Amino acid sequence: MNDTLTSYLGGQWVAGDGGGNAVADAVTGDHLHLVSSGGLDLPGAVTFARDVGGPALRSLTFPERAALVKAAAAALSERKQELYDLSAKAGATLSDAKVDVDGGFGTAMVYAGLGKRGLPDGTVVVEDDPIQLGKEGLFFGQHILTSRQGLALQINAFNFPVWGMLEKLAPALLAGVPSIVKPATPTAYIAQHAVRIMVEAEVLPEGALQIVCGSIPGLFDLLDGQDSVGFTGSAETAAKLRSDPAVTQRSVRFNAEADSLNSSILGPDAGPGTPEFDLFVDALITEMTVKAGQKCTAIRRAFVPTEHLEEVADAVSTKLSEVVVGAPGAEGVTMGALVGLDQRDDVRAKVAELAAGTTTVFGDPQTVEVVGADAERGAFISPVLLRSDDPAVAAVHAVEAFGPVSTLMPYESAAQVVELVARGQGSLAASVVSYDDDFTRHVVQNIASHHGRVLALDRDSAPESTGHGTPMPQLVHGGPGRAGGGQEEAGLHAVFDHLQRTAVQGSKARLLSVTGSGQAR
Amino acid sequence: MNDTLTSYLGGQWVAGDGGGNAVADAVTGDHLHLVSSGGLDLPGAVTFARDVGGPALRSLTFPERAALVKAAAAALSERKQELYDLSAKAGATLSDAKVDVDGGFGTAMVYAGLGKRGLPDGTVVVEDDPIQLGKEGLFFGQHILTSRQGLALQINAFNFPVWGMLEKLAPALLAGVPSIVKPATPTAYIAQHAVRIMVEAEVLPEGALQIVCGSIPGLFDLLDGQDSVGFTGSAETAAKLRSDPAVTQRSVRFNAEADSLNSSILGPDAGPGTPEFDLFVDALITEMTVKAGQKCTAIRRAFVPTEHLEEVADAVSTKLSEVVVGAPGAEGVTMGALVGLDQRDDVRAKVAELAAGTTTVFGDPQTVEVVGADAERGAFISPVLLRSDDPAVAAVHAVEAFGPVSTLMPYESAAQVVELVARGQGSLAASVVSYDDDFTRHVVQNIASHHGRVLALDRDSAPESTGHGTPMPQLVHGGPGRAGGGQEEAGLHAVFDHLQRTAVQGSKARLLSVTGSGQAR
Repeated sequence: MNDTLTSYLGGQWVAGDGGGNAVADAVTGDHLHLVSSGGLDLPGAVTFARDVGGPALRSLTFPERAALVKAAAAALSERKQELYDLSAKAGATLSDAKVDVDGGFGTAMVYAGLGKRGLPDGTVVVEDDPIQLGKEGLFFGQHILTSRQGLALQINAFNFPVWGMLEKLAPALLAGVPSIVKPATPTAYIAQHAVRIMVEAEVLPEGALQIVCGSIPGLFDLLDGQDSVGFTGSAETAAKLRSDPAVTQRSVRFNAEADSLNSSILGPDAGPGTPEFDLFVDALITEMTVKAGQKCTAIRRAFVPTEHLEEVADAVSTKLSEVVVGAPGAEGVTMGALVGLDQRDDVRAKVAELAAGTTTVFGDPQTVEVVGADAERGAFISPVLLRSDDPAVAAVHAVEAFGPVSTLMPYESAAQVVELVARGQGSLAASVVSYDDDFTRHVVQNIASHHGRVLALDRDSAPESTGHGTPMPQLVHGGPGRAGGGQEEAGLHAVFDHLQRTAVQGSKARLLSVTGSGQAR
Repeated sequence: MNDTLTSYLGGQWVAGDGGGNAVADAVTGDHLHLVSSGGLDLPGAVTFARDVGGPALRSLTFPERAALVKAAAAALSERKQELYDLSAKAGATLSDAKVDVDGGFGTAMVYAGLGKRGLPDGTVVVEDDPIQLGKEGLFFGQHILTSRQGLALQINAFNFPVWGMLEKLAPALLAGVPSIVKPATPTAYIAQHAVRIMVEAEVLPEGALQIVCGSIPGLFDLLDGQDSVGFTGSAETAAKLRSDPAVTQRSVRFNAEADSLNSSILGPDAGPGTPEFDLFVDALITEMTVKAGQKCTAIRRAFVPTEHLEEVADAVSTKLSEVVVGAPGAEGVTMGALVGLDQRDDVRAKVAELAAGTTTVFGDPQTVEVVGADAERGAFISPVLLRSDDPAVAAVHAVEAFGPVSTLMPYESAAQVVELVARGQGSLAASVVSYDDDFTRHVVQNIASHHGRVLALDRDSAPESTGHGTPMPQLVHGGPGRAGGGQEEAGLHAVFDHLQRTAVQGSKARLLSVTGSGQAR
């Protein structure tokens, strides 16, 4: 029996020829299937994207493409329960699954709206008004954005198989660029099922979306300067892919979004008894436990004024002791499993690396009480809160345990905490939790250069805050340095990143003819 | 005697310790000096930029930085004759030198104006209005742009030592980012003198501008995610630098602008006797002879409707026969020398590679009549016009002779010429020379994806057209694929490329506090 997960390539569901990697249920440890792309026609998929998917998408106007995105999102929404059920096998509780699944189609919905309202009724974006380049008004320049005539290769992380695909797919569709998705092996079956739902709904033109479950040997050799790669995952893999001649020699656009050591900073004003103190503690618990801490935006470094450190440690410990680890759906469970036993080994190893400079406030990575499952067969782990009284210890700013693990650190001044945050070498997100205007302004302005997103959290915005760890389609997702140096989402920026900016020069009449009915944005 | 060209590092003029590369006068072949960075304190220069130059620039508001840029441009303008004189040693006629020198300070002047008018009176750019993220209006997001806290390393090409430096320096200064300039060895003395003029004028804060004449061993090892590299030069060197761990592992921003096989396309309507026919011929002559064809934007591929090919070949040949090659400033000279004998060897070798698929319409790369200099001691070469009656010959779309060399090719239809242009794998610039609206629109829209800039040239705009080969500070300079995949200039985009985009989230009042007086653009 061939139990290899199928791929969707060239308009067909096809299975790799055996071998490959075995994927197990994160909760029970039972074998699920193999993942292998052996024998699949990847060059054919590239040709299909370029010759069939690209022309089909480019023949549509922006509003027509927005309608496709909306229809794809609606199809996923309709069958979301199937995706929740699959997510549970990957260790995700229902609320974890919603972050991924509802987050995914919700993001696509937002993009459909942005595309409908914010892009012209045509295929060319005109970026600016004609810029006069001569004294007599005979010669002008103007920028247009047009679809690149290649494909978008997505290489995604395991933690958000649906959202991670949709947040890249929606902007590519709007831009008229076909996508090939390469999901991470441990959760490829969830991404694959989301593709199946969209394929069965027959909402996208053939060739606009293909998925390869398994490795992609030789695929980079086929890419050129009209293509792009959107990568989410580890910094190590990002570095390897970014060294490929496709990127270095042929200028394939490469966007990386990598895990980073994100910070949360409690303001000196926010002592015990203030709403901000509680918000800080609650956010830390949330970021440690949602998706069992397997989020690239999760808080890894929690900076607390020295005078509040004990109280914070106590409050967080108390709340962590109330976390119920176990099988998604089992009675009272509030935190699920890691994605697999390899991942648990990795988290344990990273906690061991962190142990040198830290003490343990809560939890033991080797032991956990589990509800509704076997603690050893499933990839369960306890939340672990560490503490480093010397915030200059190098490991806490460099080693990331990609699970329910955070480190508390004290700081003495706003200037010091700015410097400590920068030791992370660039992060996706930071929170400043304070009701003090001067402190917040100073810290935000001075850590902005190292971040893609900074949340200023306080009692006023908390009731509607989307939280530290949640990228929003309207806002930048990405960060400098260790976070990959890339940018995703950010509203229409993500669409424009798939388009080529071209300056057109000529007489005003000629420019008007070239830009057609496109209006300056 | 140490005749090593000095560098300006750490606020001092310092000479490398001998050895290095000898640079000769392009016209006479006489030895000028050595270029060597041996023994120079490059780590000290990096620290000086980060610890002295960066903070000094960042403490200034955008209008204050714009005033610096203006003052630097004025200082260069004041002493431009010195730069013209040095440029002549590199083979540049006075009009060639003006393209570089006046083009350089002119670009800086434009940036000073853009900075003064287009950036806020502060240090933070607020990109958009607050975006409401909750139903009750308690929670918003907004994007700010802040100075990255690193340095900008410029690695420049030999052909535009002044413009190439200034078009990168001006946006960096506006962004509050200090620069280290590494000029190309053959013309480092011209860039170095331009730096000397700015240093002597005492217009920039210490550390804002340093120059290393010579190689930069180990410098990339010191760069991190707050730094950027702006490279102009060959695709080979771009690929090598882009493979460095600084870029692949630490996400140093890397922008490449590489030579490309730019096209000019004559419209079917533009037969002999039309103004566009003459414009096409004149533009080709200009692009072949200005800077002796050593321009990354020069026309390498000239596409002509089959029925006009003979007449174009005749007209271009006639004009090329009027070109007078010789020492800059000598009687009647209209085209100078290549930058050096190595460059001439390279051009000859590339013409030999092109010979396989082409016939020669005009010129012999081995022989040239020269006025006011010795044809062999100086780096002189004849303009060479080639012709490929089969436009599918691979070499003409892949091999660039970086000198006064172009190839004429016939085409049969608009669809065919679009396809042929794309064979260049991405270019900086193209011209469409036609008075036919439909032809121009079709071609421009369909080649835009492969270009950073497209000039629609006709009788109406010609009197004020800045020409095929001239990047404008207001417009994108760069191109996809072979052209490096980067973007320079484009008005304030080049400034923003030095800033970090950060989404800030919070209550409306908190956002207003963080963004201060910054106004949404």
